[in-house]
Amino acid sequence: MNFLFANRIGKIRASQIRERLNVPQDAGLISFAGSLPAKELFPVKEIEEAAKGAFIRWEDSALQYSVSEGILSLREKIAYRTNAKFRTKYNQDNICITTGSQQGIDILGKLFINEGDVVLYEPPMPLSAMMAFSNYGVEFVEIAADEQGMLIEDVEAALRKEKQAKVIFICPDFMRPSGKSWDIERRKAFIEAVSDFDVVVAEDIIFSDFRYEGEHLPAVASFDKKGQVILIGSFSRIFCPGVRLGWLGIGAPLIEYVRNVKRASDLNSSTLDQYVLDSYLDKYDIDDHVRELVELYRGRRDLLDSAMRENFPKAADFTKPEGGLYAWVKVEGMNARNLLEKCIEQQVAFVPGDSFFSHGGGDDMFRLSITSLPLERIRAGVKRITRGMSALGFHPSTRVTINPKTYLKLDEDEQKKVLLA
Amino acid sequence: MNFLFANRIGKIRASQIRERLNVPQDAGLISFAGSLPAKELFPVKEIEEAAKGAFIRWEDSALQYSVSEGILSLREKIAYRTNAKFRTKYNQDNICITTGSQQGIDILGKLFINEGDVVLYEPPMPLSAMMAFSNYGVEFVEIAADEQGMLIEDVEAALRKEKQAKVIFICPDFMRPSGKSWDIERRKAFIEAVSDFDVVVAEDIIFSDFRYEGEHLPAVASFDKKGQVILIGSFSRIFCPGVRLGWLGIGAPLIEYVRNVKRASDLNSSTLDQYVLDSYLDKYDIDDHVRELVELYRGRRDLLDSAMRENFPKAADFTKPEGGLYAWVKVEGMNARNLLEKCIEQQVAFVPGDSFFSHGGGDDMFRLSITSLPLERIRAGVKRITRGMSALGFHPSTRVTINPKTYLKLDEDEQKKVLLA
Repeated sequence: MNFLFANRIGKIRASQIRERLNVPQDAGLISFAGSLPAKELFPVKEIEEAAKGAFIRWEDSALQYSVSEGILSLREKIAYRTNAKFRTKYNQDNICITTGSQQGIDILGKLFINEGDVVLYEPPMPLSAMMAFSNYGVEFVEIAADEQGMLIEDVEAALRKEKQAKVIFICPDFMRPSGKSWDIERRKAFIEAVSDFDVVVAEDIIFSDFRYEGEHLPAVASFDKKGQVILIGSFSRIFCPGVRLGWLGIGAPLIEYVRNVKRASDLNSSTLDQYVLDSYLDKYDIDDHVRELVELYRGRRDLLDSAMRENFPKAADFTKPEGGLYAWVKVEGMNARNLLEKCIEQQVAFVPGDSFFSHGGGDDMFRLSITSLPLERIRAGVKRITRGMSALGFHPSTRVTINPKTYLKLDEDEQKKVLLA
Repeated sequence: MNFLFANRIGKIRASQIRERLNVPQDAGLISFAGSLPAKELFPVKEIEEAAKGAFIRWEDSALQYSVSEGILSLREKIAYRTNAKFRTKYNQDNICITTGSQQGIDILGKLFINEGDVVLYEPPMPLSAMMAFSNYGVEFVEIAADEQGMLIEDVEAALRKEKQAKVIFICPDFMRPSGKSWDIERRKAFIEAVSDFDVVVAEDIIFSDFRYEGEHLPAVASFDKKGQVILIGSFSRIFCPGVRLGWLGIGAPLIEYVRNVKRASDLNSSTLDQYVLDSYLDKYDIDDHVRELVELYRGRRDLLDSAMRENFPKAADFTKPEGGLYAWVKVEGMNARNLLEKCIEQQVAFVPGDSFFSHGGGDDMFRLSITSLPLERIRAGVKRITRGMSALGFHPSTRVTINPKTYLKLDEDEQKKVLLA
């Protein structure tokens, strides 16, 4: 049978083939590729208690359909926490609960994107967002950024040029690869600039709770005066992804539209999940849990950073992210897919940078997750990547702490052994 | 701000405005409109046990992401049960778990429908399906049916005419309004006819477990030889809708495509829900539970039918459905929206038939849910609808068991009182 797919399907496949790494699933493999949250800190007992509480308190309501936008009490809690952390001014009606942030982005695609419409973004873009928008036949256009954030003149120029620009996708906290965040001035200037255009801003804050240093900043949405910014939030990283809940923060004019699209997509997100999370938030302070996670991830980030400093060749350029769940490495002149091939031989994996660009680029970059590996695996993994680099001719050189006099007396094979140790 | 919505949004709103009834949410109201499953039979204690079991057995796995198509052990169970009940030949790879059947239909829309493509269906269509397909800018084309099912010559003619026909949506069990099912011969003839075309058949079986009489029939999918039919299943009615799980049954060539679209839509359905349902299915026989539900609903159907027979005027035409969750009423010459207005005054509600037709029609029909009301409310509700009909001039006439001699001696007001009693 010849299946007559929708046009969009070609685009989805392309973005997902790029993502597929063909990495063998082997217990010996150290993978920096996956970005699974650290399961050793899942509040399993607390969630079990919360589930019990949900059944006791809500009985059959926890098992019935909920309204499409989600249960009131959970929406109130999300609005309250978001206002406190991100300086927004939401009430319960501004929140629509989604099946993870992935569905939040999917709803935005459904709501705004006709085939050929444009999404502006600052590369590299999260794969999940690229995947969701691709469903709607979108064209991606890149905007440049410096260390303070998206370049305002670039944003304005793109909005003037791209008449079909419908959405600007931004992640102002912990830019990739720099790991820095848009500063306050840039956030304000950005809102100022886009407010002249009928474009929607989708602000992804799903990693924003994971700040290891510096001050937590108000969301770009907090400066929005016309309901132009939609916040994309999630409990997957700060709670757990198995209780599959995210949310959209939306201005009043969009509420009815978002609810209708949500309803058509899956009627409502798991009612049981909603009551379990709501009961958890009644009983526990999720920010205590977030603080534990931040401690754990900060330690992993620090170790990853020092391991890279100790091991990687000089050509490797990387920054210590001030927050978020990834470190980025750039090695000028090295193709990251070639490196991945060598690394697979060494039983270590990561995601090559070109996966995160819509129009090429990122070939010499790769992304390392800092969340899922314990310290000893991080250390061993960095050594393996270093060996992979050596195999491509990028030697650790002077960073290796060996005695040069002894080293020079060795023959070539023995020298190689020292370098690859 | 002027929001630049996607073209499809107009269509979504139209279908949902039609659905909105502006029925006051009043405790005194008897609503036959909602189709919520009977919560008094939710297996609350069993699900609570299953949740405990899920945490004990799976610990942090129940809280992590799952693969997009869903956990293996649940897919195996669904394949096994579907093969046993519907005579399909699935294995675990033919099943993709979805966030309710609503998402199943949404995935089919994403996969196949370009703006302007055609979905063929036999009216009246479930609102949820109409809503999901509308998201993709679909055009609906109606196919006629008789008491044995869709008319084969109509199907063939439509497929020859509609070059952009991508999907035929069918509900072969318990057609509306007749309440009858396609017979075996029609199912075979249908597959035979469509197999000459590159059209996908979406077969909705979410109500098929609720058969009150007659033999359970093999799904149309069981006669499919080329992977043309996709089954749309759900646990919302046979388990509970709050654990938000449905599934698609798909042939081998589509597996990878469906998984990719599912991934882009919400990564995966609630992992916790999946483990809770899986644990429930390990511990209990869901078909025991289905049998209890069928008993309950059969009693409600029977009472509704006899109450209508006793009360409704002769002009009302209705059939006793052999299965499913709805009864349909047709009153020639009466506009069901006018009736609804009168009925709201009487504190009783239903869904007018025109909500289920894409191109007009169904004005003189309405739908009554048989699932959510206890017996005494059904009886009272039918009396109220009868009063609404009287107010429109459709009197119960000879069906009222009154003594004609006594009746004729009353004055007009008193006669009216007797009729409306």
